[in-house]
Amino acid sequence: MKRPGKIFIVAGPSGAGKSTVLSRLFAGRDDLFYSVSATTREPRPGDVDGVDYHFVTADHFRAMMRQDAFLECAEYVGNFYGTPRAPVEEAIASGKDAILEIEVQGANQVYAKRPDAIRIFIIPPSWEELEHRLRSRGTDTPEKIEKRLMRAHVELDAAKSYDYIVLNDTVDSAVEQLRAIMQAEHCRPADRIALFTEV
Amino acid sequence: MKRPGKIFIVAGPSGAGKSTVLSRLFAGRDDLFYSVSATTREPRPGDVDGVDYHFVTADHFRAMMRQDAFLECAEYVGNFYGTPRAPVEEAIASGKDAILEIEVQGANQVYAKRPDAIRIFIIPPSWEELEHRLRSRGTDTPEKIEKRLMRAHVELDAAKSYDYIVLNDTVDSAVEQLRAIMQAEHCRPADRIALFTEV
Repeated sequence: MKRPGKIFIVAGPSGAGKSTVLSRLFAGRDDLFYSVSATTREPRPGDVDGVDYHFVTADHFRAMMRQDAFLECAEYVGNFYGTPRAPVEEAIASGKDAILEIEVQGANQVYAKRPDAIRIFIIPPSWEELEHRLRSRGTDTPEKIEKRLMRAHVELDAAKSYDYIVLNDTVDSAVEQLRAIMQAEHCRPADRIALFTEV
Repeated sequence: MKRPGKIFIVAGPSGAGKSTVLSRLFAGRDDLFYSVSATTREPRPGDVDGVDYHFVTADHFRAMMRQDAFLECAEYVGNFYGTPRAPVEEAIASGKDAILEIEVQGANQVYAKRPDAIRIFIIPPSWEELEHRLRSRGTDTPEKIEKRLMRAHVELDAAKSYDYIVLNDTVDSAVEQLRAIMQAEHCRPADRIALFTEV
């Protein structure tokens, strides 16, 4: 019997370092599936279709919504974003673990549809560090940074109901925590008992 | 704030390889505490007091029972065995993880007193392998082996309610699973939120 994969939701405030940690986690791993979102926004220079996003028309997106083809979807400044359900379900059926890097709102939607998903929240080592990271990006106005920090407080409160919180003090440590969580979750009785009784 | 330790209950059928896996896990680790049982049985040649068991008199054992000084205790062929509570609680207060290698009955008693304990069940890769291991020990009669196998079936059923099942296909793999489980359990929100809000 092939071991089925699991869905891991990875959320966390802007500035927590999700993308850096995940790109390190994925390095050299072909047993992991990274969920690429579909979006109606226009590709920007450098965007690669199917890698950064699946770029689709509004008609196409709407058709997918009607077919319940998203695990979660949301509107953000006039564009729609969604996590296509089929690739995730195909990946786990084939034995891969699927990683969904999404926002807290989207995480709730996925969890409602897939309560077997494991919810992981990535946090920076401190509020000071989060503020420092957001400021040093140099891409946001002070007002926008302030808003991001306030949202982070709200999200951290929501994270109390998550399964795990990964502390991103260093990238190495955060990746190690993620790997441990994923391995531990494959030691749950439901998976193991099936394995043992079939042998 | 010092990170507190956690209690990990490690149970599993006779022949699952608990002792081998745990001795490998403990090698070179001073951040782990191995709970040594107290017993009223006589020391055998080679037994080291405080290492194999804490050898105590029946009077002493009874006094400890009256003081609720055991996390679990049981009688086995006329002798009493118990897990002293104080050393475990001191260990976790000092930040060490405490490992309790105990029988399924004892595991239930510990869990009733410490519902924060994490229950791990170690299983051999198959029934055939379990039977092979028990027979190749050469210490038990065929009748006793048969009885151990039947008890293993009953215990595996109880293990469905455990937190994790470690598959002992190789010692290295089993130790890696245990380490992952212990690390993952330190990523639970209750621990992490406290850490973050204090910073």
